[in-house]
Amino acid sequence: MESRLQGDERLDYLVDESLKIIQSPSVFSFSLDAVLLSRFAYIPIQKGRIIDLCSGNGAVALLLTQRSKAQITGVEIQERLSDMAKRSIVLNGLEDQVSMVTDNIVNLPEKLGHGRFDAVVCNPPYFPSANRKDHNENEHLAVARHEIYCTLEDVVSVSSKLVKQGGKVTFVHRPQRLMDILSTMRTYRLEPKRLQFIHPKKGSEANMLLIEGMKDGSPDLHIHSPLTVYGEDGQYTEELKTVFYGK
Amino acid sequence: MESRLQGDERLDYLVDESLKIIQSPSVFSFSLDAVLLSRFAYIPIQKGRIIDLCSGNGAVALLLTQRSKAQITGVEIQERLSDMAKRSIVLNGLEDQVSMVTDNIVNLPEKLGHGRFDAVVCNPPYFPSANRKDHNENEHLAVARHEIYCTLEDVVSVSSKLVKQGGKVTFVHRPQRLMDILSTMRTYRLEPKRLQFIHPKKGSEANMLLIEGMKDGSPDLHIHSPLTVYGEDGQYTEELKTVFYGK
Repeated sequence: MESRLQGDERLDYLVDESLKIIQSPSVFSFSLDAVLLSRFAYIPIQKGRIIDLCSGNGAVALLLTQRSKAQITGVEIQERLSDMAKRSIVLNGLEDQVSMVTDNIVNLPEKLGHGRFDAVVCNPPYFPSANRKDHNENEHLAVARHEIYCTLEDVVSVSSKLVKQGGKVTFVHRPQRLMDILSTMRTYRLEPKRLQFIHPKKGSEANMLLIEGMKDGSPDLHIHSPLTVYGEDGQYTEELKTVFYGK
Repeated sequence: MESRLQGDERLDYLVDESLKIIQSPSVFSFSLDAVLLSRFAYIPIQKGRIIDLCSGNGAVALLLTQRSKAQITGVEIQERLSDMAKRSIVLNGLEDQVSMVTDNIVNLPEKLGHGRFDAVVCNPPYFPSANRKDHNENEHLAVARHEIYCTLEDVVSVSSKLVKQGGKVTFVHRPQRLMDILSTMRTYRLEPKRLQFIHPKKGSEANMLLIEGMKDGSPDLHIHSPLTVYGEDGQYTEELKTVFYGK
C-alpha cells in the first residue's frame, strides 16, 4: 500500500535490478552523483550507524545497504521526497535497516545527539541561493539544488557534530566550491583526507568532486586517481562501470 | 669561458636540443616538475616581465624563453646554483632576455619593487624543514628540497607582492600541501584559478600539482584534466609527451 506510486512517479531500478526506487521527474530523480558518493564513502560494513543528509528520494541510503549491514538513517527536509524514500524502503524490504527522518538537518544534532554516528554522507544542494528568481524550476527541484534550507556551512557543521571522533564524513559537490569546502571542513574540524575529481570526458575539466574528512584527523590529504565518466563513444567508460556496478 | 663546466657538472639538453643546461648530480638537476611548471604557467608572450623564484639551475627560466619574448628574471639563493644558471644563460645566448639574481626571495619586494611583474612562477622547496638531521643529503640539495631558507608562506607572500594586480602566479608543489597552498594563497590575495594534478600512473594517487592564482582575482577555480606521466609500458604517455615536447 505505502509503496503505491503517486502522480507522475515511476518505479526505476537503482543501478541494477537488486534495488528499486520511486522517482518523479517533476520532484526528484537520483543522479550519478548519488551513486558515486555511495561507492566512494568509507562506511562501517558489519555494524554501526550511518546518516545520509539531504537524502532526497533516498538513493544514497538505499545504495549503502549494498555495502553495509549498519543502521542507516536518511534525512530529508521535503515531506514529499521523504515520503517517496519511505515507500522505496518498504518496497525493497529494508525497513529493518533504513529509516527516514523528515526534518531540516540543522535540527539533527539536538534531536539525535552529538558524536553518535560512525559515518556521515551527504549530497547537498550545490548552488548558492542568492537569487530565488533565478531558479527556473519548481520548488521541489529548487530546494534540492539550491542552498535554500541549508548552506554548505550548515551541512559541514551539522556533519561534524553528528559524527564521532575519528569518524568519516563524505560529500559530493562541485569543483567550483572546492575552496569553500576545504576551508569550511577545516573550520569544523573535519580534516580533508581523500579527494577525487570526476571528469565528464577525457581532457575535460572536472565537474564533480568527492571528498572525505575525518573528525579531528591529522592533515594528510590524498588525491585519488580521477574518474572519467564518458568515453569517446559517448558511453560510460569501463572505469566508471566498475565503480557504478561494482562492489 | 663563463660557460665552462666545473667539478662534476655536465651539459645536458633541456627537454630537446634547442636548449642546454649545466647540471650537477651532487648540486642540482632539473626535474619533470620544472618542465611542467614552465608549460602550465600563463605568461605574457610578446612583452612584459616574468620572475622565476627558487630558480635552481635556471631550468624554468630557460624553458620559458621557448614560449615568451618577455624579460625573465631568475632568483636563486644558492651562489653555486645561481652561477650554474648564469653560465647556462650565456651558453644558450639568452643574456638579453634572461638574468639571474642571487638572493633570498624575501628581500625581493624591497629590492625589485611591488607589483612590477606580469607573472611569477615558482618551483619551491616541497618539504617542511622541521628536522635538519633528517636531511640525508648535502646542503645544496637540502636547500632546494626543504623549506630551510623559504617557507611556503614566504613564497606565496613574496609572489603576491611582486605580481601586479590581475597578474598570474603559478606554483608546482605536492598534493599533500594542497590545503596549505590554497589557504595561504587566499590569505595573500592570490585567488586560485586553475589547478591540475599529475598522476605518476593511471590509477595512482596524484604526486604533483600545478596551481595558478590571480592577484585579487574573483573566486572561480577550474580543475583541469589531469596528466598521467607513465603508461603501462613504463614510458612517458602521449599526453605527457605532448606537454613535455609540445608548444
